[in-house]
Amino acid sequence: MSTETVKRDVRIAYIGGGSRGWAWGLMADLAMEKSLGGTVRLYDIDKAAAEQNALIGNRLSAREEAVGKWAYEVADSLQEALEGSHFVVISILPGTFDEMDSDVHAPEKYGIYQSVGDTVGPGGMIRALRTIPMFEEIARAIRAFAPDAWVINYTNPMSVCVRTLYEVFPQIKAIGCCHEVFGTQKLLALALKEICGIDGVDRQEIRTNVLGINHFTWIDRASFYDRDLFPVYEEFVERYAAEGYLGEKADKNWMNDHFASAEMVKMDLFRRYGVIAAAGDRHLAEFVPGWYLKDPETAAAWKFSLTPVSWRREDLQRRLEKSRRLAAGEEEVALEKTGEEGVLLIRALLGLGDMVTNVNIPNQGQIGNLPMGAVVETNAWFGRDQVRPVYAGNLPDDIWHLVIRHVTNQEGVVKACMKKDRKMLFNIFMNDPLVRISPKEGKELFDTMIKNTEKYCVL
Amino acid sequence: MSTETVKRDVRIAYIGGGSRGWAWGLMADLAMEKSLGGTVRLYDIDKAAAEQNALIGNRLSAREEAVGKWAYEVADSLQEALEGSHFVVISILPGTFDEMDSDVHAPEKYGIYQSVGDTVGPGGMIRALRTIPMFEEIARAIRAFAPDAWVINYTNPMSVCVRTLYEVFPQIKAIGCCHEVFGTQKLLALALKEICGIDGVDRQEIRTNVLGINHFTWIDRASFYDRDLFPVYEEFVERYAAEGYLGEKADKNWMNDHFASAEMVKMDLFRRYGVIAAAGDRHLAEFVPGWYLKDPETAAAWKFSLTPVSWRREDLQRRLEKSRRLAAGEEEVALEKTGEEGVLLIRALLGLGDMVTNVNIPNQGQIGNLPMGAVVETNAWFGRDQVRPVYAGNLPDDIWHLVIRHVTNQEGVVKACMKKDRKMLFNIFMNDPLVRISPKEGKELFDTMIKNTEKYCVL
Amino acid sequence: MSTETVKRDVRIAYIGGGSRGWAWGLMADLAMEKSLGGTVRLYDIDKAAAEQNALIGNRLSAREEAVGKWAYEVADSLQEALEGSHFVVISILPGTFDEMDSDVHAPEKYGIYQSVGDTVGPGGMIRALRTIPMFEEIARAIRAFAPDAWVINYTNPMSVCVRTLYEVFPQIKAIGCCHEVFGTQKLLALALKEICGIDGVDRQEIRTNVLGINHFTWIDRASFYDRDLFPVYEEFVERYAAEGYLGEKADKNWMNDHFASAEMVKMDLFRRYGVIAAAGDRHLAEFVPGWYLKDPETAAAWKFSLTPVSWRREDLQRRLEKSRRLAAGEEEVALEKTGEEGVLLIRALLGLGDMVTNVNIPNQGQIGNLPMGAVVETNAWFGRDQVRPVYAGNLPDDIWHLVIRHVTNQEGVVKACMKKDRKMLFNIFMNDPLVRISPKEGKELFDTMIKNTEKYCVL
Amino acid sequence: MSTETVKRDVRIAYIGGGSRGWAWGLMADLAMEKSLGGTVRLYDIDKAAAEQNALIGNRLSAREEAVGKWAYEVADSLQEALEGSHFVVISILPGTFDEMDSDVHAPEKYGIYQSVGDTVGPGGMIRALRTIPMFEEIARAIRAFAPDAWVINYTNPMSVCVRTLYEVFPQIKAIGCCHEVFGTQKLLALALKEICGIDGVDRQEIRTNVLGINHFTWIDRASFYDRDLFPVYEEFVERYAAEGYLGEKADKNWMNDHFASAEMVKMDLFRRYGVIAAAGDRHLAEFVPGWYLKDPETAAAWKFSLTPVSWRREDLQRRLEKSRRLAAGEEEVALEKTGEEGVLLIRALLGLGDMVTNVNIPNQGQIGNLPMGAVVETNAWFGRDQVRPVYAGNLPDDIWHLVIRHVTNQEGVVKACMKKDRKMLFNIFMNDPLVRISPKEGKELFDTMIKNTEKYCVL
Repeated sequence: MSTETVKRDVRIAYIGGGSRGWAWGLMADLAMEKSLGGTVRLYDIDKAAAEQNALIGNRLSAREEAVGKWAYEVADSLQEALEGSHFVVISILPGTFDEMDSDVHAPEKYGIYQSVGDTVGPGGMIRALRTIPMFEEIARAIRAFAPDAWVINYTNPMSVCVRTLYEVFPQIKAIGCCHEVFGTQKLLALALKEICGIDGVDRQEIRTNVLGINHFTWIDRASFYDRDLFPVYEEFVERYAAEGYLGEKADKNWMNDHFASAEMVKMDLFRRYGVIAAAGDRHLAEFVPGWYLKDPETAAAWKFSLTPVSWRREDLQRRLEKSRRLAAGEEEVALEKTGEEGVLLIRALLGLGDMVTNVNIPNQGQIGNLPMGAVVETNAWFGRDQVRPVYAGNLPDDIWHLVIRHVTNQEGVVKACMKKDRKMLFNIFMNDPLVRISPKEGKELFDTMIKNTEKYCVL
Repeated sequence: MSTETVKRDVRIAYIGGGSRGWAWGLMADLAMEKSLGGTVRLYDIDKAAAEQNALIGNRLSAREEAVGKWAYEVADSLQEALEGSHFVVISILPGTFDEMDSDVHAPEKYGIYQSVGDTVGPGGMIRALRTIPMFEEIARAIRAFAPDAWVINYTNPMSVCVRTLYEVFPQIKAIGCCHEVFGTQKLLALALKEICGIDGVDRQEIRTNVLGINHFTWIDRASFYDRDLFPVYEEFVERYAAEGYLGEKADKNWMNDHFASAEMVKMDLFRRYGVIAAAGDRHLAEFVPGWYLKDPETAAAWKFSLTPVSWRREDLQRRLEKSRRLAAGEEEVALEKTGEEGVLLIRALLGLGDMVTNVNIPNQGQIGNLPMGAVVETNAWFGRDQVRPVYAGNLPDDIWHLVIRHVTNQEGVVKACMKKDRKMLFNIFMNDPLVRISPKEGKELFDTMIKNTEKYCVL
Repeated sequence: MSTETVKRDVRIAYIGGGSRGWAWGLMADLAMEKSLGGTVRLYDIDKAAAEQNALIGNRLSAREEAVGKWAYEVADSLQEALEGSHFVVISILPGTFDEMDSDVHAPEKYGIYQSVGDTVGPGGMIRALRTIPMFEEIARAIRAFAPDAWVINYTNPMSVCVRTLYEVFPQIKAIGCCHEVFGTQKLLALALKEICGIDGVDRQEIRTNVLGINHFTWIDRASFYDRDLFPVYEEFVERYAAEGYLGEKADKNWMNDHFASAEMVKMDLFRRYGVIAAAGDRHLAEFVPGWYLKDPETAAAWKFSLTPVSWRREDLQRRLEKSRRLAAGEEEVALEKTGEEGVLLIRALLGLGDMVTNVNIPNQGQIGNLPMGAVVETNAWFGRDQVRPVYAGNLPDDIWHLVIRHVTNQEGVVKACMKKDRKMLFNIFMNDPLVRISPKEGKELFDTMIKNTEKYCVL
Repeated sequence: MSTETVKRDVRIAYIGGGSRGWAWGLMADLAMEKSLGGTVRLYDIDKAAAEQNALIGNRLSAREEAVGKWAYEVADSLQEALEGSHFVVISILPGTFDEMDSDVHAPEKYGIYQSVGDTVGPGGMIRALRTIPMFEEIARAIRAFAPDAWVINYTNPMSVCVRTLYEVFPQIKAIGCCHEVFGTQKLLALALKEICGIDGVDRQEIRTNVLGINHFTWIDRASFYDRDLFPVYEEFVERYAAEGYLGEKADKNWMNDHFASAEMVKMDLFRRYGVIAAAGDRHLAEFVPGWYLKDPETAAAWKFSLTPVSWRREDLQRRLEKSRRLAAGEEEVALEKTGEEGVLLIRALLGLGDMVTNVNIPNQGQIGNLPMGAVVETNAWFGRDQVRPVYAGNLPDDIWHLVIRHVTNQEGVVKACMKKDRKMLFNIFMNDPLVRISPKEGKELFDTMIKNTEKYCVL
């Protein structure tokens, strides 16, 4: 056809562009996509990190195998990063590991254990309090400097981040992307192998109807061409529920690689609720009362790990060292696809190829029984300058009970944080399923955690 | 005016008409209302009890002081009771104290304590499972034999009972009445006395905007003529929150008379949420996680009692003896108003005098942020053959978090019970805030309690 | 009771306070209400008229029979009128009779006849274009100077005026009052006399469930104590539909006194739709296609008059002369109640006595099948500082068809006028049922009428 | 991949299978699709016609070029046709051309002209009254004999037909398909050629966001890969609006081939409303007041024809003759794709290839400002055993005014027809924009038309 099918002038602003790890994956994905090229402007409060990544990115782009050619630049300000952008990628760490240490471990004194601590639970909520002001600032900057750009967020807590963007700038064109559902699609592909002997299925060949909220997403229909995958998964669960599925890890995404689980939480939820929980066990366990996280022993019995922040600190050291090597040319960025879909979405939004995939956006009715405007995760159709949710239906009633609690807590956190309503925040804190302590103890813990994050959020 | 303002041919069907206690109150209220008269047909599965009450009622009606004259008859069947009725009063005990013993005390083995056990919590849910089939039967009978009658329910769990009536017969004209809000209006009258020195205020002079669900109702506006009662109540709470308000009991209604509380739960909730919880502390405590009901010591510290079923058994003996005396003419029914509004509502529905008061009916929008169709409690306008809810507004966000959980559990219980979905019922059971145990323990308790109620509900 | 039941310090701002006629009615109503007193600040763009009314008001207040004592003052600005006010009354004429002449008579060239021309139809829409900017200014002033005051609007087009107030200042406490429904209640009282021989019934003894929009309001339930008025009205209609009801005028309100109708439109609508249209025939006829307004002959056959603006000009001369006499003391304001309820509503809002009556406010669900936020007319409960709509139900389906068209046109006019979207306004203009001409002719008429009103609204 | 990608055992029930014309198109499409094969059971009240078509179908299937092999059978009853079916195709003529003659021409006596008369207007409504009872019967049969089958309807009036299916059997899996939107996509392809010189574009390469109701559908976003088509269409309209676009016919679909139009209505609507009307002019004109259909001269001035039923009678004669020749083997069914998408949808629903296209189904929120449950036309995602609407957004306000009137009329017609409410039907009749006559004339016309269709619908 005679219209343009290659775009060489795409301008991407990357907020959090100093990242050690996630940025390199994006660079690789861009380098491997031949229909796109242009400029990536890296912005980070750690400017030196952004500069190092520009070096790494340009080095990569110079390689012959890199079929997508990109110039990496460093921006001094949000304004500089955003002006003229077609796309904005946001992937930031709100605060430092010191704050995260409090998020994850302060509640343990009160018998509250968290496996991740970045989405819900006391940790997720306090992290949200740091993140919301940052996203308010970003949203205002986008409104001012790049109101027509498409914004792709990868930061957690996902729902809260995306919700904040829309709250500040309702006309924003923002979406939130997460690979958790992909992991479950891979598990379904493994089930096809284990149960039906069908090998080599790509997760993108699995069709799933996705509904819920980020990290607490559900699948109520799954198929592989003409085959219904529910009976397949049911048989798989019957085989592995008792001892867990350990033969092959479902999720090879690098971000979760170290984080083992035997899918026992996922399988237990399937047996109890009849639909497929579509996130890692470490995330799922945090959304329900102490069923799987009563104490470390309970978690161990369900065969998933509580990721300590100390591990993250060590891991960061390794990544810093790797960054040095990449910048120095001692090591090369691996040209392997990350499995993230960001680059595909950019293509689709440019009009170079429609696609349907799952995404986090405000509810416009795609989930019939969740509130309009709340950020939900379902499939959507992506086309030229459009993301249109595909109707996912209603959450089954008893799943709804579990999900609505978090939807409304998250809606409340954004609202209360924006108006600095500490009293309301405490009431929401006490409404989290992991917080099963008295109001008095709850108040102590809440005050402590708020204090530990006060550099980023004053209430 | 020249139209009829007295109705002498009113026909009331009283389901549960063998009651020892509540029936006598209704008889007294009817006897003291001079604009009404007619027939009350008593129906009870314990026919002898109904017969004794007919004797008592007719004896009362014969007294000169009884200005409202009523003939009491016994009906052999629901059909006989209902045919030709203008009003149907339902006040039944679902099952016996044996089942109630299980409802209230079986969970204690798992560390779950309940102060009443008839509305929510494990006990309220299992009681609902007994009640729903009875109300299905009653609703079908009303549809067949008295489709135009107004139905006034007093049975607990209130929301579930009324919801079942509408589920079976959507055109039913049914309402649920409860005196709990009146108790809080009396407390406000006491606050007026304590804080402002205004004595002798009748609770009906207090205007309140009521919103929530039965036994977990809230007041967000209260006034006494031109005076805002919120500052008054706030001062009252500041004075009494620490030690409780013991000077005078707020609620003199006979049903709750023995059930002491120092209003500490109510005052704590006010301090935390800023709106007035409008039910007795024993009820309120059951709607939230273990804040006030962690164990008997916690309840005692908040100064409210856990009513044991053994007490109810003893109390029944006293009432049976009184019944005998009343029937034998050794004692007379006291001609004191009960404070219930049933007779006033009957007057209003006949066109003899409009009124606005609180009532439990399906949500038609009167609470903006609760689901349509769920049974909610708000004010309504009562006029000739009409009950029209008055718009109560939205529940404040953080109160909403607490209420919606029960709204959806109750909606779910009705649905799951009607389709005998034991799996869904267990999922709802695990969603109750008082149930803070593992799925495994939860299943044991659930199965035990279901077994203990199997005479009335087979799943 | 020991609380205050008389308010002597009430401050009312009266916008449009130079009115010759309506103002004197309000003065009389205030003078006859013994529980209220205070200050009325008159504001009018015709300051001399306001001054004359202050003279008239103070003269009235000085009379012994005036039990409510009020000081009338003139305000130089909206700010001065509003500051410190408890209540704001708005009753203005948007533009002059010159503009109204165009509203009513310009369309006649295209075969479009209007009996009033102030609500819907081409005239109502163009009048709205003048009114909306004035109400935007008033709303901004209220937000700035009297945000807590209760605002009572009497200006037409009612729905559009009230909607504009809320659009500009969503927290405003504004209501719109209109006597049209009262006229139908009086007609029901007459029907009681004609059909049942019950004489002397006050319209306030008639209970009606009101639903719809101003001047196109419907009654689907009506009763007189225990008596259903629908069979009564049906018999009345059967008796009078063919020739009209001329024996006694239903509506004695002074504003409509000269405007004869035989209720034939109202009765025809009842026969076709089965519910009672509750406004004067002259208003009703304008809301439907050319059924009753095809041409002057059709209107005459249905026995209602097309009020010419020339008549209004003459009437104004009479009222100006009367104003001079009243100011000069040559004539006294008659101490007769107008039948308007404004003063009763003020009492209720002060906490001196609850009431339920019909009012125009944004839909919060009181009409289930009209859009939320659109201004609708239903009953509401009035109490201390509160107006709470009473749930009116759904409009019957085929009535809904007629009403929704105007609801959405009115919503559209406010929106399009505020953003000066002339194209959208023309599209709405063409959607009016009275506009049954080609797009080309429609454009000519629209442009002419817009031109004729350009002093007040530039698009 | 190792799963099945060809389906040879598909069973289709074809209701109205005796069709002369449309059936042959479906046969051709099936014969050209190599991934499918199976059985088509033809059911028709004219059994001889079905038998002739079975002959024609089997003859076609026997040809070598026919890569999809189907056995055509005749069913004696709906039950026989439906049992065991995977798909049900419905394409019937409700009544005969005698009834259609009345639908189209009876209103002309009252100055009401219709260009098609099968969707809205007096003709569309009376046709609906014949169709609804037939679809009630079909829906009951599907519920009884093929509850899991996918139902594809092609019968008009489309919205009413599909709505009836869901009203009778809410769990039905039914969709309505129509090629009108395709015609507008082709027009956009022509605009690309005329304005941009891009030739040879297939309409399926054009991406459109479709929203509205069948035959009154709108496009508010259109693109060709990375190119926005709105500026292109705007230029096209500016060039051709005055004289019409006659150079090449946009719509080559055989059904509309004879029915000339110069797209002037479509272009006028675009200029007035700013969005693209996506149906043929003959359909569009019937949805608005007499703008384009005031009289035959007006229609001629807008360059579209009023299709007389006499033409349809003649055309049928030609098709009957062709049927004879096909059955006799004197002529062969042409193996040309019809442009209908039915066979593609069947593939997608079997899991053999997802697709996104426009379809008529109940609103589950895909159009935010139309009522839930009403049948609307938008894009949807088709996959294995699923049709999920894609969120289309809200209709622009002033378009909404035009559309909602028909949505509610259609909803009302289904409801009123099913409960035989003649009074309500007349009220809806008078609410149609083409009916601009007095109630008295309206009643005469309505009664006449009802009488003319009484063989199929008794009210």
